[in-house]
Amino acid sequence: MSATNSRLWQQRYRDHAPEQGAFAADEVIATLLEHRSVRAYLDRPLPAGTLETLLAAAQSAASSSNLQVWSLLAVEDPQRKARLAELANGQAHIRQAPLFLVWLADFSRIQRQAERHDIDLQALPYLDSFLMGAIDAALAAQNAVTAAESLGLGTVYIGALRNNLQAVVDELRLPPLVYPVFGLCVGYPDADKPAQVKPRLPQSLILHRETYAVHPEEQRLIDDYDRTLIEFYAEQGQQSPGWSRQSLERLRTVAILHGRERLAAAVKAQGFPLR
Amino acid sequence: MSATNSRLWQQRYRDHAPEQGAFAADEVIATLLEHRSVRAYLDRPLPAGTLETLLAAAQSAASSSNLQVWSLLAVEDPQRKARLAELANGQAHIRQAPLFLVWLADFSRIQRQAERHDIDLQALPYLDSFLMGAIDAALAAQNAVTAAESLGLGTVYIGALRNNLQAVVDELRLPPLVYPVFGLCVGYPDADKPAQVKPRLPQSLILHRETYAVHPEEQRLIDDYDRTLIEFYAEQGQQSPGWSRQSLERLRTVAILHGRERLAAAVKAQGFPLR
Repeated sequence: MSATNSRLWQQRYRDHAPEQGAFAADEVIATLLEHRSVRAYLDRPLPAGTLETLLAAAQSAASSSNLQVWSLLAVEDPQRKARLAELANGQAHIRQAPLFLVWLADFSRIQRQAERHDIDLQALPYLDSFLMGAIDAALAAQNAVTAAESLGLGTVYIGALRNNLQAVVDELRLPPLVYPVFGLCVGYPDADKPAQVKPRLPQSLILHRETYAVHPEEQRLIDDYDRTLIEFYAEQGQQSPGWSRQSLERLRTVAILHGRERLAAAVKAQGFPLR
Repeated sequence: MSATNSRLWQQRYRDHAPEQGAFAADEVIATLLEHRSVRAYLDRPLPAGTLETLLAAAQSAASSSNLQVWSLLAVEDPQRKARLAELANGQAHIRQAPLFLVWLADFSRIQRQAERHDIDLQALPYLDSFLMGAIDAALAAQNAVTAAESLGLGTVYIGALRNNLQAVVDELRLPPLVYPVFGLCVGYPDADKPAQVKPRLPQSLILHRETYAVHPEEQRLIDDYDRTLIEFYAEQGQQSPGWSRQSLERLRTVAILHGRERLAAAVKAQGFPLR
């Protein structure tokens, strides 16, 4: 295990890395492990061709049956970014980032082909199609994130773009059979407000072998992780109640969904009955 | 534009790359662009620590509100792989790959914390939670794919793991609030049956700026792509009706879903009412 590998592991898990040979990190894997979500951007334009590069990376991700049921909508207009920020819980970094990407599940492209051939797409109303669009958009977006980071850019996903889905649909003039899965800010990170690598749950709590089994020491490991996260936030002068408390608060009430409780109604209105 | 960049673009789009400076491909981006789905594997074990490396990459992907609502189930037992292959439309590469990863949306971990504190997670029954689990699992899996490919391994996603979701739940003994999003084969590619980089739709059909607009030449561009894909398959001695015909067939009937039409019922039975 090289010093770099050991540092990358330590940074992600705040724990000793596995023994010699058990963890490899080449340049590509180091880029993945160094990921942090960036919420403060410089007012600096992106180099020409950045969007094309990110999109080429995104389209290189696997696509279910090669259907390519997603599209990418790039927003650079400051007024539109400001309106989208308002719709997404007022997140200032949406305004700040020079490029805001909206990842769309998109069955309208294939629906236009179906109409041309007078074919009824009977699989489309099922939940699996809705889900497939979201999965393929997510695989694509994650490749774009990796490409962006390798170019020295920062990103942050915006799930809150689903808070007011109908308003986002209207703002972006999305046709039927298209819905926004999430947003993504892209820009140069502001070095004065550096983002840190967030520690994650230990591998032993995420990984199951052969069949699912709850770890016999789950509670102790979660208690440890709670403390790790409290420490992590304290280092940045922030308070945190720990992972478990924070996560429980995030799922405790319908009010905290900030409108996402209307997601099913909104995607049904876009033509996905979720049968 | 370097010769490498030009080759990578040409390979992915079967079209001339954009002009000088408009497309950058460093080592990381080259790894992404070289992606191909591998369906033929060598009978060669993975180096020790591979799974830990892939999982560290996966956990480094963004997680919505850091909830980490996913788990990874690693299957190496040949009998279990064979049974899962049967459940997933008999895909032989599931048996062949030394490692089969099942990516799980998993709210059971946080639910156990909720029970400990006697808290009712009221946000959980909503569609957004179901979707968030799938998205976060997909972001994680795509990082694992990138890490695997940088290590010289091949992968292929198995969406057909949703064909018989209830049977997969039983086989893997998944508790309530857990569902399999997709599978992923991992192994050394068989160089005798090399996988090729699949050409994708042109960027102009995927990319929208500011608002959604159907490309005025969509049909011509799709006709071109249909021909590109027919050519691509012909090079490998295979027949294809082109992208549009193939995609229409994939969505035309309920029968082609091979059981995925029961997905909504199965995930509801796992505790996701999709409200």
